Amino acid sequence: MTTAAAYSIASPDGRFEKTSIERRELGPHDVLIDIKYAGVCHSDIHTARNEWHGTRYPCVPGHEIAGLVAAVGSEVTKHKVGDRVGVGCMVDSCGKCAACLAGEEQYCTGGGVPTYNAPVSESYQPGGHTLGGYSTRVVVVENFVVSIPDGIGLDVAAPLLCAGITLFSPLRHWNAGPGKQVAIVGMGGLGHVGVKIARAMGAEVTVLSHSLGKQEDGRRFGAHHYYATGDTQTFKDLRSRFDLILNTVSAELPMDDYVRLLNLDGTLVILGLPDNPVKVQPFGLVGFRRSVAGSMIGGIAQTQEMLNFCAEHGIGAEIEVIVADQIDRAYERVLSSDVRYRFVIDAATM
Amino acid sequence: MTTAAAYSIASPDGRFEKTSIERRELGPHDVLIDIKYAGVCHSDIHTARNEWHGTRYPCVPGHEIAGLVAAVGSEVTKHKVGDRVGVGCMVDSCGKCAACLAGEEQYCTGGGVPTYNAPVSESYQPGGHTLGGYSTRVVVVENFVVSIPDGIGLDVAAPLLCAGITLFSPLRHWNAGPGKQVAIVGMGGLGHVGVKIARAMGAEVTVLSHSLGKQEDGRRFGAHHYYATGDTQTFKDLRSRFDLILNTVSAELPMDDYVRLLNLDGTLVILGLPDNPVKVQPFGLVGFRRSVAGSMIGGIAQTQEMLNFCAEHGIGAEIEVIVADQIDRAYERVLSSDVRYRFVIDAATM
Repeated sequence: MTTAAAYSIASPDGRFEKTSIERRELGPHDVLIDIKYAGVCHSDIHTARNEWHGTRYPCVPGHEIAGLVAAVGSEVTKHKVGDRVGVGCMVDSCGKCAACLAGEEQYCTGGGVPTYNAPVSESYQPGGHTLGGYSTRVVVVENFVVSIPDGIGLDVAAPLLCAGITLFSPLRHWNAGPGKQVAIVGMGGLGHVGVKIARAMGAEVTVLSHSLGKQEDGRRFGAHHYYATGDTQTFKDLRSRFDLILNTVSAELPMDDYVRLLNLDGTLVILGLPDNPVKVQPFGLVGFRRSVAGSMIGGIAQTQEMLNFCAEHGIGAEIEVIVADQIDRAYERVLSSDVRYRFVIDAATM
Repeated sequence: MTTAAAYSIASPDGRFEKTSIERRELGPHDVLIDIKYAGVCHSDIHTARNEWHGTRYPCVPGHEIAGLVAAVGSEVTKHKVGDRVGVGCMVDSCGKCAACLAGEEQYCTGGGVPTYNAPVSESYQPGGHTLGGYSTRVVVVENFVVSIPDGIGLDVAAPLLCAGITLFSPLRHWNAGPGKQVAIVGMGGLGHVGVKIARAMGAEVTVLSHSLGKQEDGRRFGAHHYYATGDTQTFKDLRSRFDLILNTVSAELPMDDYVRLLNLDGTLVILGLPDNPVKVQPFGLVGFRRSVAGSMIGGIAQTQEMLNFCAEHGIGAEIEVIVADQIDRAYERVLSSDVRYRFVIDAATM
């Protein structure tokens, strides 16, 4: 087994403490990664604080992992020592269900394994549940390790492993590209990456943000248009405008207002997870064959495609690098929207 | 102008009375149709009784019209005297908006004209609003008149002009066919035609009806499977089963239960118009990239395609022909679900 430093939380109202954890012995298909950076995702906060229930403590969050390969198992062919690699929200799946066979491992029905807080055997992860990227090392089966192209820094690449693929996948699935009107709702950790990717795909990109406070940033990231949703005129001006609206906001929104912004055959995709049901008047859907859909990260092959695409287009997340003992403080700042646009933990400070 | 007999209602709580109406002078692109049959759609009831508000009285409903061409305008090329023809839910559109140019006239944003209760000029329809198919004659611009192939009776064809296309269009749009699992929710006027069409398209068809009361009929119409939604076991047995669910029921349903019946990338399409908002838990959408969508009838070209398809596959609506002075009684029977499966008015009795 391999010992690693980690930052761990012991209870819903606890604080992150430095600790030492074990990673499993390298199996023939495993890759040992020296973690360099780990992004801070809002899901980390929900899990650390047991807001989604079922958190297994001690908990080590982190599913936006970038690092270097330190060792490989005897059968590994996909990666070699020294390679720049990443790990996202999942570290395994059944490989046999329809979703896995379609390369959509994120929807695995046969036993997908999230990067942290998933129950596993002691031999898979000592302690009996997966421990994430707030750590210096991790062992992951090679098929769930993606390559980070040279053209992109490990620090700005880390958030792409969750935030990036969460936006890239629906943009691809619903055919964002030239001639398409795409709106991104929310200019946070997810949204700002979505703006960059959608622009690079060739779509006409509009940000719908509560205020115009981040307008300058939005335009710098590539948005053609920027509207405040706090202004009711916005919903009149943009009626039936969009082919695709990606909603990154978890707070409850007046969905009918947003649905009416969809053009014929347009789709509004929910990427956050509001606590309350989505409520939509049927007429808004029926009257223009609109859809409301959901999407969750993306498959492994598509995650690699996303990283290649981002490298090619010079896209990285906008980040603020923090030292590991500032995680609690970073969480507070995320909750007060005081981050532009993603915190990334420097694993060298663990 | 042309005089026609019609059945008209004068107020929300009135009764249908025989009357005489005028149809406009035949313009160069107009077709005069001797109506033979007119289906009774639930929308007729909502409109006649002002349940959707905005009903213009006197009101002549009817948008499932089948008849014979009696005369054509000087420039008409699409139809000739004696042709078997139909008219559905719309009699005109702008012809210029994106929807019209895409052949989706039902979503016209430039001034689509529903077959009844639409405000129009006196020269278009004396009285200033369109009057529908509960009548012996109607004048319609040739592009909104479709051909009814010889292989299909005018009586059983009439309901296809609304009920048929309402189901055919989403089945085509969401690619029902071999290898696809399709569920039809509700075995009424819409649903029973949907079963026939989906089966003819090659899909594996399941009916989800409140009880098993119409199971024998459903299987005769082509359903491979028939489940009662009153039985909670149904929702366990069919979890993640369907690629496409068409909901023809206007009553409020526990949507989360139905969404969970969708497979990866599956879509639930709302065809009725419930009064209340559709409520869906986001996780049900996000977890399997599911969609909830709406759809409304279909374009003119697709309506013709649907009629050709139905003729080819021997599909007509299951009907009960009524005499015109039984319209009020028929409405009561529709409301108590005492119809298998569509009332059709014999215009010869007007």
